[in-house]
Amino acid sequence: MTLPTDPAANLATLIRCPSVTPAEGGALSAIEAMLKPLGFTVERPMFKEDGTPDVENLYARRSGNGPHLMFAGHTDVVPVGDEAAWTHPPFSAAIANGEMYGRGAVDMKGGIACFIAALARHVVQKGGPKGSVSLLITGDEEGPSINGTVKLLQWAAAKGEKWDASIVGEPTNPDTLGDMIKIGRRGSLSGTVTVNGRQGHVAYPHLADNPVRGLMTIVDALLNPVFDKGTKDFQPTNLEITSIDVGNAATNVIPARATATFNIRFNDTWDAETVQAEIHNRLDSASGRKKYRKGRKEPIDFELGWKDRPSHVFLTRDDKLIETLSGSVAAVVGRKPQLSTSGGTSDARFIKDYCPVVEFGLVGQTMHMVDERVALADLETLTAIYQRFIEDWFG
Amino acid sequence: MTLPTDPAANLATLIRCPSVTPAEGGALSAIEAMLKPLGFTVERPMFKEDGTPDVENLYARRSGNGPHLMFAGHTDVVPVGDEAAWTHPPFSAAIANGEMYGRGAVDMKGGIACFIAALARHVVQKGGPKGSVSLLITGDEEGPSINGTVKLLQWAAAKGEKWDASIVGEPTNPDTLGDMIKIGRRGSLSGTVTVNGRQGHVAYPHLADNPVRGLMTIVDALLNPVFDKGTKDFQPTNLEITSIDVGNAATNVIPARATATFNIRFNDTWDAETVQAEIHNRLDSASGRKKYRKGRKEPIDFELGWKDRPSHVFLTRDDKLIETLSGSVAAVVGRKPQLSTSGGTSDARFIKDYCPVVEFGLVGQTMHMVDERVALADLETLTAIYQRFIEDWFG
Ligand SMILES: [Zn+2]
Ligand SMILES: [Zn+2]
Repeated sequence: MTLPTDPAANLATLIRCPSVTPAEGGALSAIEAMLKPLGFTVERPMFKEDGTPDVENLYARRSGNGPHLMFAGHTDVVPVGDEAAWTHPPFSAAIANGEMYGRGAVDMKGGIACFIAALARHVVQKGGPKGSVSLLITGDEEGPSINGTVKLLQWAAAKGEKWDASIVGEPTNPDTLGDMIKIGRRGSLSGTVTVNGRQGHVAYPHLADNPVRGLMTIVDALLNPVFDKGTKDFQPTNLEITSIDVGNAATNVIPARATATFNIRFNDTWDAETVQAEIHNRLDSASGRKKYRKGRKEPIDFELGWKDRPSHVFLTRDDKLIETLSGSVAAVVGRKPQLSTSGGTSDARFIKDYCPVVEFGLVGQTMHMVDERVALADLETLTAIYQRFIEDWFG
Repeated sequence: MTLPTDPAANLATLIRCPSVTPAEGGALSAIEAMLKPLGFTVERPMFKEDGTPDVENLYARRSGNGPHLMFAGHTDVVPVGDEAAWTHPPFSAAIANGEMYGRGAVDMKGGIACFIAALARHVVQKGGPKGSVSLLITGDEEGPSINGTVKLLQWAAAKGEKWDASIVGEPTNPDTLGDMIKIGRRGSLSGTVTVNGRQGHVAYPHLADNPVRGLMTIVDALLNPVFDKGTKDFQPTNLEITSIDVGNAATNVIPARATATFNIRFNDTWDAETVQAEIHNRLDSASGRKKYRKGRKEPIDFELGWKDRPSHVFLTRDDKLIETLSGSVAAVVGRKPQLSTSGGTSDARFIKDYCPVVEFGLVGQTMHMVDERVALADLETLTAIYQRFIEDWFG
């Protein structure tokens, strides 16, 4: 029986599964086929919830006598975007100039492929780790994240599963493999603000009330001033306007309403509640301003709503986990990684409620972009780091 | 034979024709049926052009020995909007509290209904005007205005038609019938400006470039400073942002581009070319500003485009036409109307190339709105004014 010791072969198999969120696309079945020969028991729970897509997930455990390490990840990928703009088809796993192309190459089928290869090599070379290893793999990380890791953790915990530490294989390195381990994450909140005006004809602006002027003031208040300058462990809080939409096709009509959507990534200066309060304060204050409201005396009529659930900010403090992973990186690449809390949210924000969690994977530069790709050399290096970590953490 | 001497009956007939632009809806046929018994020759030219709707139009002439007066108008109406919000169905011509409800009641089936009633009364009472009267009625005033009045004027002129004066029956009165005659119109231009950014993940704003920030600067430059303070004959030039659209539904994605659409109504300080040059100058200058571009050194990457054809500004100077109409209004309502150039464009901007043109019709307050309606008393008053004008102008 061939064991999955080659990370490039593992990754090519996974890229060829078109698992655009929330589709399974064959990716979880491929992982199941890789793990079973390594002695894993594999379960495939599916979760459903009204109004959200049904999602397939995978939980695999190889039991042993010792501590329990969980590797967490996702096989779903974001859409390919402009498929015609890809140099190689996004589900082909084509190799050119020492790089493998494909949606999910770094985010994060590549991380899964390397972790499985590291385990397989450990099994081949040293008989496998002394303790327990589990893989918690979801198909709902890039989607609404409702029928994925949250429910998988609850489901496993309800069966009595307990973990001592977790490593999430998301792409954490900005430029070069070994740059960065993530030991925490900013929180995230999304909201929409709609300004209500009064529809009318552009030639009679005094009979109408253009909501775009009010929305300009609101957006200005969302963007300025900056929320903070960052903390010892975290980058500055940042707000991005992700969309503005009016949807008025008639050039002689002043529209009735205008909506802005925003996302804010906040550090440990804040929690979700204080960020929401700050936004409310800014808009309450700004809505009375006259800047873009020529001659209007009424305050801006706006509605603020919050989307989805907030992601909470967190910071992991577990010396054994962080030092062991940091040491494994240094042993393989020759330099210490930065311990960072930068970047987006990940499923680590859910795992942190069950056990200490860090994140380390490939170089993220091409994630979510056209021509997402990974250097074959990086796959070997990450496999070596994961293998070293498994050896050292289980001691 | 019953002649169309009752403006309310004429209007009810027209409202019940659902002639939402560009549909004829039976409205032109109804007018044809009213005019033929008054001695009119009626023609129904249809105009077509690639990429625009085919439009039915009507040209009717009652020939006589004397000057030639043209009444111009349109039977097409804007969409009803939120039909459920109407107190009475928009094509029912329901009467309540002395008002007739319906889309087009004031803009401008009401004006047509009154002019036909005025003519019919003149025919009954005095045998009809000594000169020639024509009605130039289009079904493409609320639409792209391509297959309507412009082509109708060319078509009639090519047949040898010449006019000495024209009255357009658009609703010109802001509050009370008799308030205002329009003797000119501002020009109109519409454009779009798209800011190109770089798509990316909200958690990595330094790898992306949010075009919304640049668009904020661009919109600010479009709105400020004011273009002018108005002139002796005209209101100030005014720009409205009619839409802003990004269309990004992913709250974790910084979008690639953002578009604003605007319309500008300009007075005789400007012409279409100098307005376009001003907008170009403002955006060229603003695109180098840093206000909303934290840390970015490149200028804002924008594309400016112009929509449709510009409408040119004009001012009519014809003492006989203006004084006669003004005197007719004063004779009926007891006060002199204001001579104004305020409000939107109308088909008068095309007619002015053929003969002197003024506009006078109903009270415009409910035009283009839910519950568009007209007081029955106003229909009688406008009919009386039109009849007096016909008598006095033909002398
Ligand atoms: Zn990911
Ligand atoms: Zn009209």
